[in-house]
Amino acid sequence: MPTITTKPPSGTRDFLPAEIRKRQYVMGIIRDVFERYGYEPLETPSFENIETLLGKYGDEGNKLIFKILKRGEQEGSGAADLALRYDLTVPLARVVAQYQNELPRFFKRYQIQPVWRADRPAKGRFREFYQCDIDAIGSTSPLVEVEQLAAVGDVLTRLGFDDFVIRLNHRQVLAALLTRAGIEPRQHAEALVALDKLDKIGPKGVRAELAERGIDASAADVLVNWIGADPGPDVLPWLRHELEPLDAAGQAAFENLAQILGALERSGREPGSGKMERIRFEPGLARGLSYYTGAIMEVAVPDLAGSLGGGGRYDNLIGMFLGRDVPACGFSLGLERILVAMSERAMFPGAVARGAVDIVVTAWPDAPLDRAVSLASALRDAGLRVEIYPEPDKLGKQFKYASSRNVPFVAVEGDDERAAGSVAIKDLRSGEQTSVQRNQAAQFVLQRLSLAAEAHGLRSGRRTPD
Amino acid sequence: MPTITTKPPSGTRDFLPAEIRKRQYVMGIIRDVFERYGYEPLETPSFENIETLLGKYGDEGNKLIFKILKRGEQEGSGAADLALRYDLTVPLARVVAQYQNELPRFFKRYQIQPVWRADRPAKGRFREFYQCDIDAIGSTSPLVEVEQLAAVGDVLTRLGFDDFVIRLNHRQVLAALLTRAGIEPRQHAEALVALDKLDKIGPKGVRAELAERGIDASAADVLVNWIGADPGPDVLPWLRHELEPLDAAGQAAFENLAQILGALERSGREPGSGKMERIRFEPGLARGLSYYTGAIMEVAVPDLAGSLGGGGRYDNLIGMFLGRDVPACGFSLGLERILVAMSERAMFPGAVARGAVDIVVTAWPDAPLDRAVSLASALRDAGLRVEIYPEPDKLGKQFKYASSRNVPFVAVEGDDERAAGSVAIKDLRSGEQTSVQRNQAAQFVLQRLSLAAEAHGLRSGRRTPD
Repeated sequence: MPTITTKPPSGTRDFLPAEIRKRQYVMGIIRDVFERYGYEPLETPSFENIETLLGKYGDEGNKLIFKILKRGEQEGSGAADLALRYDLTVPLARVVAQYQNELPRFFKRYQIQPVWRADRPAKGRFREFYQCDIDAIGSTSPLVEVEQLAAVGDVLTRLGFDDFVIRLNHRQVLAALLTRAGIEPRQHAEALVALDKLDKIGPKGVRAELAERGIDASAADVLVNWIGADPGPDVLPWLRHELEPLDAAGQAAFENLAQILGALERSGREPGSGKMERIRFEPGLARGLSYYTGAIMEVAVPDLAGSLGGGGRYDNLIGMFLGRDVPACGFSLGLERILVAMSERAMFPGAVARGAVDIVVTAWPDAPLDRAVSLASALRDAGLRVEIYPEPDKLGKQFKYASSRNVPFVAVEGDDERAAGSVAIKDLRSGEQTSVQRNQAAQFVLQRLSLAAEAHGLRSGRRTPD
Repeated sequence: MPTITTKPPSGTRDFLPAEIRKRQYVMGIIRDVFERYGYEPLETPSFENIETLLGKYGDEGNKLIFKILKRGEQEGSGAADLALRYDLTVPLARVVAQYQNELPRFFKRYQIQPVWRADRPAKGRFREFYQCDIDAIGSTSPLVEVEQLAAVGDVLTRLGFDDFVIRLNHRQVLAALLTRAGIEPRQHAEALVALDKLDKIGPKGVRAELAERGIDASAADVLVNWIGADPGPDVLPWLRHELEPLDAAGQAAFENLAQILGALERSGREPGSGKMERIRFEPGLARGLSYYTGAIMEVAVPDLAGSLGGGGRYDNLIGMFLGRDVPACGFSLGLERILVAMSERAMFPGAVARGAVDIVVTAWPDAPLDRAVSLASALRDAGLRVEIYPEPDKLGKQFKYASSRNVPFVAVEGDDERAAGSVAIKDLRSGEQTSVQRNQAAQFVLQRLSLAAEAHGLRSGRRTPD
């Protein structure tokens, strides 16, 4: 056989067990929180008919779509009829159109699935990566934004982030400001693109960018001052003052934002609960995408360039296949970035980091196979994760194997133990060996594991027995 | 915009929330059981370099592989460089070669991921479907087979199947029998293909098929008698008698099977525990694939044509990228068929079937948003899944919405309740409405939900609060 590479394809990753455990832990918390907020799971096929995706992501996006060759006699034509999912929003729009009579009036879904983009691979940029989106379809109520902000805050808090800020702004409020600064509506998009670069190029850079894009210097001054402003604790009076005089559209935008901020503030718990006080109005937040129509939001963490996720209201997009506007507000968590940040900060609980196996049952030389099987079976019934060492190697080698796999306990049921109805349990972390009654072995190990978890200030993540 | 179809591509499915809940429930149990047996999760990319897959599945398989067009300037060439995963075994072989220095000596992995095949779509046959494999790499010990059989039995029992049988046979035992019947080794593969059709065409059909494939009538007689035999409870003496005289290879095969059966029998629990007694030696089981080298196994359920999964030992395949043999034994659960069978038999617990939301918090007309947000927040902290009705509609409409979504409870915090510090909780199943203290609302609902789950003889599947 000719030698071929056994690496995964460029820009993709194999996830070995330790990595999957981290991913499952994070996704489990995300699912749990989103379900508490009434979001329901949705999954769509990995590929779509190619015409469903083409033209939805601009010229640049079209080039990054992975296209699938027709099959059979048409394979040779080089034509493609299918394409890999590029994001989770276009498939959602398709689902909203296809199942409009089955879906609830207010459809709140979460979706955690991979997407594929033929980007040039780079550090932290993959061709296959997971997106994690929540979207609430069918209501224009500011309650939707309030709930999404709270849900995202809960996810991050449950994951252990204690220094995040969710930045909040409003596209229509920005529009009112642009108008007040003397910028014509036809130039608003240009101005927002410049504003969006604030984090990367700073206020001076934004001023230069605005000039390049044909914005008057005086208008640029107003904008740059505004985005650098600190509204202080009384955001709403400050904002009303800044925006005066407001036209009808500006007034509606102000009231919408005021309702969101007001509900967040009044429903917030005591300081330190890690919830509402982490949400901050940020005059300079613009968000790159053009389709937002209301509130926009983004998660920032101090030592991390870029964001851990973002979203906003976009009332004119999700109805693309229905031919009418459908109100929608969504948030996309940056799952891959969250995983990187949590790994760098060692934020995973001990039970996730430790390993996949709680105890190795050793093979006693010349003992029949069923001795180990019976002991393992009893330990598993109590909820433990048990591996039986499969070969009749020397005990020392079996212990070494367990140790190299980070397994905390090893069980030995030798002939003496067998006769006495006991099992020797060795704690590989302390080196301590204890003889316990066979029918109490599971409880002994469970107790030691939960003590260790408590000692680390962590929940053990233990499954409950049947 | 021109009208385009919003159906998912041919042979693929959108999974709406109710369907995903079933899938997550089944996958959750599968993961839990496999992890108790020391299997670890693995995930590989959705596509592989095309040369990794081509030639691994025969000419027919090559045609069924979805191929991905090269990108950029080469897109027009019609050439493909990537291909969608066709099964989970070839990617595992690649992983075993790529990470040979990192993986444990005994690598036991489970993998639950979609695969894609350009088959003609039909009832129950999809182009995108999940496979669910366990494989144990690195040991020839019969303990591996014993543990896999027990794990699969545990999965099916936990899912609620009480009428399955895991059929067990052994390729080398079959080879010894074929030899004893006078069939030349070069004809063994032909004979096995004919035997494999027993379930579909019956003993007469097998006899005809054997004749067509050039097997002597007298040899065919021996085979057909054998596969129709009932070994009775004492399998091993019967088997030894049937196979006499045994050559060295036959003796080794017999002993291997005897160890597996012996360990299963001696470690089995009392009858009715739904475990070991569900595993049965089946002389006529052949399994279609050519690569098996030892034990073979398959799950049968009475009213279901075909199997819920199967597997066996295959010691000469997983080292395909290493250029040497690596011992392996695997089992593939038919996840999609299990889901169909469980749906047809209504085997999902009430909590899975019921819905995604435990309680709808109504919007009280003219009340500020934060009233509902605060109540929902308290309910969520107790672990409940809560949806807030987002629009100020009439209460009747809000109740109707909750009812149409199968939500069991609705909470109303009107102005009177607000003044009294209470909440009205309506049970939509009984119609009963109860006024409870606001800070006891969560416990009230949790208690009613767990009572309902008990009444159905089911665990509630309730998450524990933080």
